[in-house]
Amino acid sequence: MILDGKYIAQQIRAELREQVDALRAQGKRVPKLAVVIVGHNPASETYVANKIKACENVGIEAMKIAYTEDITENTLLTEIRRLNSDDSIDGFIVQLPLPEHIRESVILSAIDYRKDVDGLTPESMGRAIQGMDAFISATPKGIRELLARYSIPTEGKHVVVIGRSNIVGKPMAMLLMQRPYLSLPNMSASSLGDATVTVCHSKTRDLGAICRTADILIVAAGSPKLLTADMVKDGATVIDVGINRVDDASSPRGYRLVGDVDFENVAPKAAYITPVPGGVGPMTIVSLLQNTLQAYKCTKEKCTMYEG
Amino acid sequence: MILDGKYIAQQIRAELREQVDALRAQGKRVPKLAVVIVGHNPASETYVANKIKACENVGIEAMKIAYTEDITENTLLTEIRRLNSDDSIDGFIVQLPLPEHIRESVILSAIDYRKDVDGLTPESMGRAIQGMDAFISATPKGIRELLARYSIPTEGKHVVVIGRSNIVGKPMAMLLMQRPYLSLPNMSASSLGDATVTVCHSKTRDLGAICRTADILIVAAGSPKLLTADMVKDGATVIDVGINRVDDASSPRGYRLVGDVDFENVAPKAAYITPVPGGVGPMTIVSLLQNTLQAYKCTKEKCTMYEG
Repeated sequence: MILDGKYIAQQIRAELREQVDALRAQGKRVPKLAVVIVGHNPASETYVANKIKACENVGIEAMKIAYTEDITENTLLTEIRRLNSDDSIDGFIVQLPLPEHIRESVILSAIDYRKDVDGLTPESMGRAIQGMDAFISATPKGIRELLARYSIPTEGKHVVVIGRSNIVGKPMAMLLMQRPYLSLPNMSASSLGDATVTVCHSKTRDLGAICRTADILIVAAGSPKLLTADMVKDGATVIDVGINRVDDASSPRGYRLVGDVDFENVAPKAAYITPVPGGVGPMTIVSLLQNTLQAYKCTKEKCTMYEG
Repeated sequence: MILDGKYIAQQIRAELREQVDALRAQGKRVPKLAVVIVGHNPASETYVANKIKACENVGIEAMKIAYTEDITENTLLTEIRRLNSDDSIDGFIVQLPLPEHIRESVILSAIDYRKDVDGLTPESMGRAIQGMDAFISATPKGIRELLARYSIPTEGKHVVVIGRSNIVGKPMAMLLMQRPYLSLPNMSASSLGDATVTVCHSKTRDLGAICRTADILIVAAGSPKLLTADMVKDGATVIDVGINRVDDASSPRGYRLVGDVDFENVAPKAAYITPVPGGVGPMTIVSLLQNTLQAYKCTKEKCTMYEG
């Protein structure tokens, strides 16, 4: 069965729109996201435009804050601190990469975890890993949501994660191994967890043998067709995080997008599998929208995030 | 072969003493640790006394800061912030548990990660997991040091961790899976990593089968003799983190300490194994001493911790 990320993302957007509409109908302000961008990287400009469009599509207010390439680290830091304390902004993100003279770790570390809707700061990750309330970053959150929406249980299952990046592999592993914990409002997927988790990577020996023991495979290696059919147990769930460009003369663009999974041959063996594109990808941007609405709901009065 | 934690800890203490003596001989101030304790929990009093004694034993200055049971959360927070900005104190720890009216998460989160020599705050853990410089908590750091001192390689090995606690299982898994990263001064063990890591726990199915595939087993489940000989591959390395009291009428105390490993039957199969007591235990307190010396060396001028 195909795990249709595009469809689920659409469904979630409709739910979010309904919730934001209800706020507006009650005469309340709507959630507001700020997106910080420095300089004019064309790819970054596109990503930012898409995020703002996705917000507006569900009624979330989105504000682009653009700085010129020559902003100093100190000035940017001051701006981050201003956003931290601006009560009219529920959450904000800093589009990466930043210019070379600005240290990303310094900027990210300065973001208040209660507004860190990208979930990328060390504190957000540390909190999530310790089972405290925190924003989860887009890809692991999107995958968790996808599993939840298709009612794929993780308790006692063997999950094999291929890839150990800070934004996918490590947080994904941590979320799936831990006890389901008390969640923030509206985190339907938070009860997933309790899995036995193995993290594999480029130094792993006999990857095939390990993968064949997996009930759920999450492949985030950035390597086209890394996961082949002989590495997959019958009835496994396969989540493909890869987005790779491969040359394709028959495509008008000269390339096509493929995942890290040999979809054609793996799909017949898998109980559930995500396509590329249309699987994990569409889920990541709704994660940001969900986090923003969550940040809006998380006020000093009623959110455990403000307890520590 | 026995991994003699008691002996290695002694060796490390001698090295630390030498380094602190050299500072003193150069007319410099010595490293200083502050230990915060609230109330009169007898077990806590003993732990604190032992930590202070261990510091003094290697020449590190240690200061006990005791508050009465009725201190408010706010006053304690103010004290934490004072310690954060006190340049005469290199690192400090807050002995847990705290009285019920004080939220531990609030207090821990307030500790500056650059002084968090216990490595328990969300930010320290998040930084460590993202491969940034950070203090590693006592048990995972001690185990990593023990593996390093016995030159037990981890690259490409399958490590199975039993237990998913915030203070042992999760950080241990993260440290061993990640790329060896640029380390702080004096972190001899920091080049360990690059292992394939599986985390098991109470919900894991067929624990035995998973354990039998392990090159290195790290058992932190708090369950006496959980790991039996049939679960261990010939030639595996076995690290026992458990400290359990079991009744023993023949002992003057009426009990004896046993680990999570059936030592008697596992030892003949293992290439390396830690005893209980005398294995991991003695390594944990030297981790604190190492972190304190590291905090001393880590000044605003020359430490990457101050970069982000």
